Amino acid sequence: MTAKPRFELFAYWRTSATYRVRVALALKGITAAERIINIDAGEHRQDAFLAINPLGAIPALIDHETDALPLTQSLAILEYLDEIHPEPPLLPPDPIGRARVRSLSLMLAADTHPLIVPRVKKYLTTTGGFDDPQWRDWQTRWFTTGLQAFEKRLSSDPGTGIYCHGDAIGMADICLASLIVVMRVFGIAVDGIPTIERIMRACEAHTAFSNAEPRRQVGAPPD
Amino acid sequence: MTAKPRFELFAYWRTSATYRVRVALALKGITAAERIINIDAGEHRQDAFLAINPLGAIPALIDHETDALPLTQSLAILEYLDEIHPEPPLLPPDPIGRARVRSLSLMLAADTHPLIVPRVKKYLTTTGGFDDPQWRDWQTRWFTTGLQAFEKRLSSDPGTGIYCHGDAIGMADICLASLIVVMRVFGIAVDGIPTIERIMRACEAHTAFSNAEPRRQVGAPPD
Repeated sequence: MTAKPRFELFAYWRTSATYRVRVALALKGITAAERIINIDAGEHRQDAFLAINPLGAIPALIDHETDALPLTQSLAILEYLDEIHPEPPLLPPDPIGRARVRSLSLMLAADTHPLIVPRVKKYLTTTGGFDDPQWRDWQTRWFTTGLQAFEKRLSSDPGTGIYCHGDAIGMADICLASLIVVMRVFGIAVDGIPTIERIMRACEAHTAFSNAEPRRQVGAPPD
Repeated sequence: MTAKPRFELFAYWRTSATYRVRVALALKGITAAERIINIDAGEHRQDAFLAINPLGAIPALIDHETDALPLTQSLAILEYLDEIHPEPPLLPPDPIGRARVRSLSLMLAADTHPLIVPRVKKYLTTTGGFDDPQWRDWQTRWFTTGLQAFEKRLSSDPGTGIYCHGDAIGMADICLASLIVVMRVFGIAVDGIPTIERIMRACEAHTAFSNAEPRRQVGAPPD
């Protein structure tokens, strides 16, 4: 008998995409061994991790019950977890509902988050000549654009309930919360998002979300 | 009897995300009435289109056999089409394969494409102070980063076949081609991507891809 867990998650305390996987695992009651890759120290570019994922990207999830390469891209990992471990579902049962939840998820995970990741910061603050206030304006602009568009959609669409889609937590809530928690890490605030704030409070009442909070992870700096 | 088609696609000739939906519809043999929204003329911000999609985003797809709001986000639309019209499939049948194809798709549609869209160009060339060569460097940087990472993954992974995943066309091929065709519109070239070039040639042998070519769409300027 081995104590080796089925799942191994390569993670870092403050990344939005890692947070999504952490919440999804917790919602489904799946335990994963978490391996810390300190991206602030460049560990994602070192040989030890490149042997796991040659692209140097986290999160990466290994399912030891398969011989597959590590899974990457948070939304692909969430879909995978939902397929192999359907309860509780991250997507509604009907195709239209699934399209709505995937669309909401992509508005944030695809149209918003990639604009404020470390490699973009590095480019803009070196080659791009941005100083700190300009970088902050950039971050604020895309958090604001993304979240206000998301708010507009939630508040005008009868599909919205206690959570982003009806009254059950799902993938869109995870993506929303993943953006809000990193926005807090950066100390950025966005006005005019009351529906988002209401849904965020509902999410944070669940330990799956509150336990995934970046500041509560191993490797987070003290407040 | 009405001639109104089931599907209505709000589209523009040169957008990468519209191209993805156009190819998926063609692969599945679905006819959609295409409505041109001239984003260069700002039509996506005018009342007529905002009544269709308050967020002003294309592509948007209406399925007139439902009373749902227009579907948005190209990958969510592709998943929807795959669910309601499964043949030929855009995703493989096994969860690991599906995770791989979704991950490849997201590497380009989420991690790469959102960095080079019009709203980012507008910000960088006004507020950001980028001149034309700096904008071109920015575009080139993210096309290069995204495609070379994609190449590295394809060329090192036995899951790659004639196409991105085995020997059947799927969602990852659509996302790959969608990036390559807009890169050509911009006149940008990326070196060191032989696997991508091979797969792109295989895709373009299909009319679903060649007919979706931006320059062949209504509204495209003459060469």
